[in-house]
Amino acid sequence: MKKIRVAIVGASGYTSLETIRWLLRHPAASITYLASRKPERPISELFPELLGRLDLPITPFDAKAIAKEADVALLCLPHAAALEHAPSLLQAGLKVVDFSADYRIKDPKMYEKWYQHTHNDLNNLAQAVYGLPEFFEQAIKSATLVSNPGCYPTAAVLGTAPLVKAGLAEPADIIINAASGISGAGRTPSQQHHFPERNEAFEAYAIGTHRHAPEIEQTLTAITGKDVQLLFVPHLIPMDRGILETIYLKPAKGADIKAAEEAFANAYGGKPFIRLRTSDLPSTKYVANTNYADIAVRFYSTRFVVTVAIDNMVKGAAGQAIQNMNIMFGLDQTLGLI
Amino acid sequence: MKKIRVAIVGASGYTSLETIRWLLRHPAASITYLASRKPERPISELFPELLGRLDLPITPFDAKAIAKEADVALLCLPHAAALEHAPSLLQAGLKVVDFSADYRIKDPKMYEKWYQHTHNDLNNLAQAVYGLPEFFEQAIKSATLVSNPGCYPTAAVLGTAPLVKAGLAEPADIIINAASGISGAGRTPSQQHHFPERNEAFEAYAIGTHRHAPEIEQTLTAITGKDVQLLFVPHLIPMDRGILETIYLKPAKGADIKAAEEAFANAYGGKPFIRLRTSDLPSTKYVANTNYADIAVRFYSTRFVVTVAIDNMVKGAAGQAIQNMNIMFGLDQTLGLI
Amino acid sequence: MKKIRVAIVGASGYTSLETIRWLLRHPAASITYLASRKPERPISELFPELLGRLDLPITPFDAKAIAKEADVALLCLPHAAALEHAPSLLQAGLKVVDFSADYRIKDPKMYEKWYQHTHNDLNNLAQAVYGLPEFFEQAIKSATLVSNPGCYPTAAVLGTAPLVKAGLAEPADIIINAASGISGAGRTPSQQHHFPERNEAFEAYAIGTHRHAPEIEQTLTAITGKDVQLLFVPHLIPMDRGILETIYLKPAKGADIKAAEEAFANAYGGKPFIRLRTSDLPSTKYVANTNYADIAVRFYSTRFVVTVAIDNMVKGAAGQAIQNMNIMFGLDQTLGLI
Amino acid sequence: MKKIRVAIVGASGYTSLETIRWLLRHPAASITYLASRKPERPISELFPELLGRLDLPITPFDAKAIAKEADVALLCLPHAAALEHAPSLLQAGLKVVDFSADYRIKDPKMYEKWYQHTHNDLNNLAQAVYGLPEFFEQAIKSATLVSNPGCYPTAAVLGTAPLVKAGLAEPADIIINAASGISGAGRTPSQQHHFPERNEAFEAYAIGTHRHAPEIEQTLTAITGKDVQLLFVPHLIPMDRGILETIYLKPAKGADIKAAEEAFANAYGGKPFIRLRTSDLPSTKYVANTNYADIAVRFYSTRFVVTVAIDNMVKGAAGQAIQNMNIMFGLDQTLGLI
Repeated sequence: MKKIRVAIVGASGYTSLETIRWLLRHPAASITYLASRKPERPISELFPELLGRLDLPITPFDAKAIAKEADVALLCLPHAAALEHAPSLLQAGLKVVDFSADYRIKDPKMYEKWYQHTHNDLNNLAQAVYGLPEFFEQAIKSATLVSNPGCYPTAAVLGTAPLVKAGLAEPADIIINAASGISGAGRTPSQQHHFPERNEAFEAYAIGTHRHAPEIEQTLTAITGKDVQLLFVPHLIPMDRGILETIYLKPAKGADIKAAEEAFANAYGGKPFIRLRTSDLPSTKYVANTNYADIAVRFYSTRFVVTVAIDNMVKGAAGQAIQNMNIMFGLDQTLGLI
Repeated sequence: MKKIRVAIVGASGYTSLETIRWLLRHPAASITYLASRKPERPISELFPELLGRLDLPITPFDAKAIAKEADVALLCLPHAAALEHAPSLLQAGLKVVDFSADYRIKDPKMYEKWYQHTHNDLNNLAQAVYGLPEFFEQAIKSATLVSNPGCYPTAAVLGTAPLVKAGLAEPADIIINAASGISGAGRTPSQQHHFPERNEAFEAYAIGTHRHAPEIEQTLTAITGKDVQLLFVPHLIPMDRGILETIYLKPAKGADIKAAEEAFANAYGGKPFIRLRTSDLPSTKYVANTNYADIAVRFYSTRFVVTVAIDNMVKGAAGQAIQNMNIMFGLDQTLGLI
Repeated sequence: MKKIRVAIVGASGYTSLETIRWLLRHPAASITYLASRKPERPISELFPELLGRLDLPITPFDAKAIAKEADVALLCLPHAAALEHAPSLLQAGLKVVDFSADYRIKDPKMYEKWYQHTHNDLNNLAQAVYGLPEFFEQAIKSATLVSNPGCYPTAAVLGTAPLVKAGLAEPADIIINAASGISGAGRTPSQQHHFPERNEAFEAYAIGTHRHAPEIEQTLTAITGKDVQLLFVPHLIPMDRGILETIYLKPAKGADIKAAEEAFANAYGGKPFIRLRTSDLPSTKYVANTNYADIAVRFYSTRFVVTVAIDNMVKGAAGQAIQNMNIMFGLDQTLGLI
Repeated sequence: MKKIRVAIVGASGYTSLETIRWLLRHPAASITYLASRKPERPISELFPELLGRLDLPITPFDAKAIAKEADVALLCLPHAAALEHAPSLLQAGLKVVDFSADYRIKDPKMYEKWYQHTHNDLNNLAQAVYGLPEFFEQAIKSATLVSNPGCYPTAAVLGTAPLVKAGLAEPADIIINAASGISGAGRTPSQQHHFPERNEAFEAYAIGTHRHAPEIEQTLTAITGKDVQLLFVPHLIPMDRGILETIYLKPAKGADIKAAEEAFANAYGGKPFIRLRTSDLPSTKYVANTNYADIAVRFYSTRFVVTVAIDNMVKGAAGQAIQNMNIMFGLDQTLGLI
């Protein structure tokens, strides 16, 4: 079998490392190019865990050179940087999966408002497909540019869409209480995430002001056709990886737990990475280092309570990107991800 | 100064250890009695951290003997066990601070429903004072039996009561998303709290069914005079100590953040253990090993979001018990707790 | 390709879970049998992370039935229990990889002394091959019973043998300071490994009396032909997985760091899972969830200091067992382990 | 009682925070001055846990102004910085306890070699007293400048000196395997101590090259009168606070465990912060947030193995400084430290 040749652009962050780890064991893909704007040390100095596992040099970014060596580019770049690199890669004929937020927010004014950066690639923005395969698989199949969802939005949308779409929950009064392990904050050191500050600490941040909130609202509105409004409150958990979201939804008139469970079963029947938990509740531990999203719905007088667990580095980033890549190349979406 | 002589009844759990730690440095109290139903090993075998710090033997429970040696008994017992021991201690003339739930729930039927145990000490139940000094200091002053609040309820009530009492939040649609370190689960080993199961794990449990929910509702109703109804969802954090509660309240008509901040300032002016945070948010780290409750209120379109952090072993248990003891004996409530 | 059919015997511990995880993605093996002495719940109740990933029932142990369904049995049992099950499996024609200590200690009296159990399967003991592929690959190829090394011994032998064998270090004065994550203590809950006891705690245990000491001595003596004597001191690290051993060896006359580095390079050239670190030091983090053993040697006046890191659940258990299985079936030893 | 007025110089690090915490509850000392070279934010912005607990402004360093307000200065500064500030404070008549290494190494050439800084305060260096009260209490009593020991050296010396001094262990072949929680690395963020890098990681560093090695050798030589040589290998533990050192000593001819235990009992009889453990082993958990050093000695054929646990921030820094301060001012050394 001819393998998909994969370029990774932006090699120094955690999502890059996680993508490399998964691709090293992917039976139908191989990493052929590591690009970074500045020449860097060998990848095994950046990431000592890769010693002896990947011998590619890190090369300055050059879209045409990449196009010769690769079929697809995975962009592990921060926002704004992706915007600089995606157009030339697409023009050179590569398929692109972008990990950043640059092609997620469809309204360029909304993007500018939340990311303080002007969007200057409106054509690609228009045709970019939001890479949540459980809802957009058909569009991903034929996409050349897939915008990989944010980690929080992945869990939020998966946990919320079935109930809202089925008319079982009110779309305009949703509360998402989210918590994430610290790898979600990226690899750049800071006082806030210095080990002795973060260890044995749990706290909320960015109450109502996190950039993932508009992404979640836009996606839920797109999926459900309803005007979704929500309050998103993230927290930091003193651990490496994992997101748990506890979602509070107001039941529509007459909605009950049976209907809710059916809505989830209908939405995710045959979706290989969604696991509906009935006899126990999702835990970040059960999905760590996997591409699964575990979901449970409960009902308690005034609310549906949905809990969703994913690994923020896998289903929330690298795993989902590979799932998208698999779909874009006509492969089984689970390939290399079990 | 003559010191308060303190008996600790029920010596083998984490709240007992924490109480001992604080009392060892209390300038106006000394531990004179350690009681347990079964004769035990020296306290320093139960708790190696106490080696050389406390040389008292652990003695079988005997209310009269305790009354000779002590002025007050702190009951570090599980529910139902407190009910067996408190009456004789009170009859022998001791003041009692009970850590269990046995004298918290005022309605014996409610107690029976949630704790599967019949209440057989209705007289003492009627006169027991709920030991949340920020709201019940006057009653605590003259109480002989103080029922020390649960850890979750302490944070929940402190974070909720001012807004509801001031009419700024709807009393019947409150969501409390709580998270606790694992010491809150007690000292008995279990599969669930075995280190490799709990480490690097975050999850919800007992959604809507935790025993602390009725305690919170009862207390808030008592304080505010309104019929409070709430949804309480606890989570486990992979760390030792600390509770963070993120409370979602629906604003009453016209309520704004300024009024909310004033309500908190009014409620807690002069309360030495309440710290209102305005420029940052509460973290379990900032209150660890202290008796402080840190509170912040934020407003975001559809909800007030209050976050409250306490140390579950201190303000949520041992520290609050000593605060109550100080008040019962006419001392400054902060004595030994700074 | 016809896949190796694998039976897992003893399904409820961490090594079983880890073995299943790796086999689920092994391209040339599939799990066909889960055996346990007592009928159990579905494997996904025992291990919620396996929900939807493995639908095999857990079946009572029956060697003949296993032989019909499987080519090899991996015994994830505690010591003594393996001794009960291995003989019938071997007799039924299965190859066996035993995770326990039952076939590791070649001298049955030594086994009885350290494990308080009489060895009653001396024939199989005699022919069992110690499954450390870096030293015994040839014997493993033709073995029907492979005794998978202990976690501590794997790291200890890999870090020590090259220097002793090359005559660069004195064989009779070796100090092994080891530290392990808590999964190494197994899945049965205990006071000692209850989360709040173990978290934020670091301590030594079993100084000089750990059962892995004689296993290390025996193996080093077998490899080097010298009478090895050592002091082994294990510690517990508050984390899930990973072993780091810091080994202090007395240099033989004239031995220097260059010779030591060459000894390691010679010993492990072409060994796919050994990584010699020269510019940095091994960390448990760099080998977590991999089958690698990272090794560095340093020299400081009076001692060689070798540090070795492995994942105790992978190279220290499940990964090494699969590596052995691969070799026993003539496959590339890295298959399914990258 | 007139309280000791304490100035803290260098307010932004962890040792400063820890010192403040302990002094806030010290019955005979009060913090009257916070000095820092650059004007800073309020202390409660630097350390949110201090909100409402300490209202002193942070003031630029001015030795004369400090002398008016304080009796003693605690210097929580990095090395080289202490050297800049101590002389003027001493000249202004203050007693000084210096947390840095600047006055620990008695040989200025040795200091220059290990700290890459020329010592320019030789007079004060000569009269500085090494602040390990268990061995130098008399000298501390009359000292005006006390050099507070390093965290690793505190544990190392306490665990080693009795055996070497009593002639029970060879002075020139000591191996100290040390491990520390991450607060020991200070408060400045770095890639190395970024939470996701450090969490679930255990590793050695600075093998044989750590700056605390010469400090330990110098102190042991001073105490025992013997030429001590040792190999010191530190490790990082993924937790906040705590040091455990596992010390390997070669027994002198005829030395046995009984003599070793007596040597420890003799050395530390009446020392309030030393706890000799016989029935269990020291753990960082048992000494966390205390000023205790827990010590156990075991014997295993070729070595004495001594394990020592301290809290690196307390007995290894702030607590020991206050213990020294107490002694310098003629108070009970345990005051404020129980």
